[in-house]
Amino acid sequence: MSESLLSELKSELLAIADLNSAAMVLEWDQSTYMPAAGADARGRQIALLGELAHARRTAPRMTELFRGLSAVAERDDLDGALVRRARKQWERATCVPTSLVSEIKSHTARSYVAWTQAKPSGDFAAVRPFLEKTVELSRRYAECFPTREHILDPLIDANDPGMTTQSIRALFAALRAQLVPIVQAIAERPAPDRGFLERHFPADAQLAFGAEVAKELGYDFARGRQDLTVHPFMIRFAADDIRITTRVDEHDLSDALFGTIHEAGHAMYEQGIAHALDGTPLGEGVSAGVHESQSRLWENLVGRSRAFWARFLPIAQARFPEQLGDVDLDTFYRGINRVERSLVRTESDEVTYNLHVMLRFDLEVQLLEGSLKVADLPEAWDARMASDLGVRPSSPTQGCMQDVHWYCTTIGGTFQGYALGNVIAAQVFESARAAMPDLDARLSGGDFASLRGWLTENLYQHGARYEPDELVKRVTGKPIAIDAFVRHLKAKYGALYGVTF
Amino acid sequence: MSESLLSELKSELLAIADLNSAAMVLEWDQSTYMPAAGADARGRQIALLGELAHARRTAPRMTELFRGLSAVAERDDLDGALVRRARKQWERATCVPTSLVSEIKSHTARSYVAWTQAKPSGDFAAVRPFLEKTVELSRRYAECFPTREHILDPLIDANDPGMTTQSIRALFAALRAQLVPIVQAIAERPAPDRGFLERHFPADAQLAFGAEVAKELGYDFARGRQDLTVHPFMIRFAADDIRITTRVDEHDLSDALFGTIHEAGHAMYEQGIAHALDGTPLGEGVSAGVHESQSRLWENLVGRSRAFWARFLPIAQARFPEQLGDVDLDTFYRGINRVERSLVRTESDEVTYNLHVMLRFDLEVQLLEGSLKVADLPEAWDARMASDLGVRPSSPTQGCMQDVHWYCTTIGGTFQGYALGNVIAAQVFESARAAMPDLDARLSGGDFASLRGWLTENLYQHGARYEPDELVKRVTGKPIAIDAFVRHLKAKYGALYGVTF
Repeated sequence: MSESLLSELKSELLAIADLNSAAMVLEWDQSTYMPAAGADARGRQIALLGELAHARRTAPRMTELFRGLSAVAERDDLDGALVRRARKQWERATCVPTSLVSEIKSHTARSYVAWTQAKPSGDFAAVRPFLEKTVELSRRYAECFPTREHILDPLIDANDPGMTTQSIRALFAALRAQLVPIVQAIAERPAPDRGFLERHFPADAQLAFGAEVAKELGYDFARGRQDLTVHPFMIRFAADDIRITTRVDEHDLSDALFGTIHEAGHAMYEQGIAHALDGTPLGEGVSAGVHESQSRLWENLVGRSRAFWARFLPIAQARFPEQLGDVDLDTFYRGINRVERSLVRTESDEVTYNLHVMLRFDLEVQLLEGSLKVADLPEAWDARMASDLGVRPSSPTQGCMQDVHWYCTTIGGTFQGYALGNVIAAQVFESARAAMPDLDARLSGGDFASLRGWLTENLYQHGARYEPDELVKRVTGKPIAIDAFVRHLKAKYGALYGVTF
Repeated sequence: MSESLLSELKSELLAIADLNSAAMVLEWDQSTYMPAAGADARGRQIALLGELAHARRTAPRMTELFRGLSAVAERDDLDGALVRRARKQWERATCVPTSLVSEIKSHTARSYVAWTQAKPSGDFAAVRPFLEKTVELSRRYAECFPTREHILDPLIDANDPGMTTQSIRALFAALRAQLVPIVQAIAERPAPDRGFLERHFPADAQLAFGAEVAKELGYDFARGRQDLTVHPFMIRFAADDIRITTRVDEHDLSDALFGTIHEAGHAMYEQGIAHALDGTPLGEGVSAGVHESQSRLWENLVGRSRAFWARFLPIAQARFPEQLGDVDLDTFYRGINRVERSLVRTESDEVTYNLHVMLRFDLEVQLLEGSLKVADLPEAWDARMASDLGVRPSSPTQGCMQDVHWYCTTIGGTFQGYALGNVIAAQVFESARAAMPDLDARLSGGDFASLRGWLTENLYQHGARYEPDELVKRVTGKPIAIDAFVRHLKAKYGALYGVTF
């Protein structure tokens, strides 16, 4: 009985996954190759596929299926995990009225246009009414979900299941207390040179170098590919078709290179998921935080390490002899790890990045709670930048209007994942290092398969089978905590900047 | 009353069109960029979209809509044409049981694999049982449609509405009687040199030249793009996203170039359709024959004319100075128009091409009628090649196994469109010339907008509003006939080969 219901559920979930994959192919094309003139029709087509997937997910038959499968959902096996995750997605999908979804979509589309027009001059007054409406809609959206202690909880739960406003706040408070003095101590030291990264690096050669690096790390191009786009992303169409995108700045080697390693990290996670999970709700990365941990692990803990560049600097120098021929390993390593108290999150380094993220998170909490008025946002932003980073934007262009977040969709539930990613990455990497004490030697010798194999065995293969906190415990023996990340920063940047923390 | 039904029908047709467009984006990606490993999931996703579109097209509500709109279907306006074409597509969709569609799909997938394995050695015995089953399935498929005089009629009607086996046979008999002596007369004359086309032309430079030509002819890259593929095609996702694909042979300039002009011809037809028809059954080329007439008009009547090369040879020489610097206009013009009694249709020239097509058409008729057994196909093919073209394949590899047709889907209803295209192209071009007596001077002066404007005004904008024969009558004042095509061949090739026909 429950076996036939289970088989019916799986078949329906596969159809829903296929509709979503089809929509993603349309989105990928829109972001890479589509002529701009095709946007209207494309938007309509993507919306239609989304509506069809939503209709199937919320069909009356689903209620019967999940009722009939309640015993399976208790099981400790793969099918139990599958039914639980599917049921949660179904519950979430049934909570929000489609009229509200439509209202959010049409409002945020207008808000996005207003932001693109107002950003260059930093005209916050022009976007303020839009943001006020977005906050209201975000609150109404969050209120659709019945169980919550805090208004933000259901939004966090959508991306980082198991985390709450309270648990994130506690984690972030501890992290901020550690980070601020580290940043201050570094700021007093002389800044290393990174001018060599800003020489002219032709786009084609950068793309070829990035692809070589991604391939050697273990991104499988036979089951993926790389294309150019404006805002790089990783996207999964199926277990054997997982793509990355990048962009190139001919006057900064690091943009495309570390961006490519970042997306390849996301993609290697997806490529490592067991094939048996493909087309099920378990066949994907388990949470925003864990996903980001793998992009950041490869980008920062591997890609910005000395061991990595012991391997790749000679290769980079062979590809760019005129630009990098005069740079030694130490100079290069210091240059790519320069810490700067900058204003813009997306351009910030490994040390300061989380401060940007926590600022966003805290302001979102206050906006949604109503304790911060939209009108007071610019001043709240600037004051926090000054206290955390010691710099102050001269205009909202570099402050609370600096990126498209808050102007293109609801607010809340997104930013915590970026900081969690850094924290989890360090914790997982520390365990990998404990399992392979000679890890640095392996990396500098070009053996990335050991690390990737360890990650696949311990983390990637499981997809979304285990909840994030349980998964991290299985991999590292401990719940998610900031200790390893703080140890990593103190050790690496203490040595780099000659500071004792 | 009928207005609200009409509006409901249009909205449902738009959703069906959007599902089909989504499937086409997935197919385009599959043919251009998708890693081969993604094929299984992609096939499943495309099939799902096809099933959803089919289910909507054959939903019970459609019966009510078309019943309620029967008066509108009689009207002489756009909506009348729209309802008639939608009704016909609906009738056809309801005729074929989905079980037969599935059986055909799974059989032809196996047949395709058998053909790819057997083709290199010309092992007809290996594909014979597959082809026998394909013939049987094609017959059963055709028998699903109630009204027909000949078993092939519904298959022809699917692609070239208004044409029948009888009308095609009559047209082809007359055409063949003209063509065979022309080919024989040319074969007795010395063949012009085309060796300069087979020098080394780097792929990138060929692509850039092809794109320059397509742009100057009037293909709008702002509403389309060109990508590489194995079997080039044109594809429409929406009125403002109509793409072409090409392939490049570095040792033959003509492959990519004329292929690009061919696909650009298809695309300019689609780009010229009135925007108001987009998303309706009228927003597409009206038939296979009319569509092919526009690709062939631009490829052959424009692209292989002396006037065209008076304009483009200097440009080609600037791009390929080493390869083409020593070639004068007359030599070039003769080289690209060399007539050859060759074995393979896809490599054949403007004069012999239709003989290849008619051979295929006649053999298909006999196979479906049962008057030719599959076992006797190789000999029937070879004998017809000998009588029509004076050459005989040494193996089925170059005979009845030469291309994927007959091995990848049902047989019947496709080939007539290729010959009709050449016939209609000449007829339309003759009318364009009559309207613009200085057409050659315009083309050699680089004015392609006049011709494209005339075609848009008289033909393109109407999309599928008028049935093919009515459309050709509106454009040329006469029903579809071979006269103009025969006049064109005799004039052009008489002069080229010094023959008086």
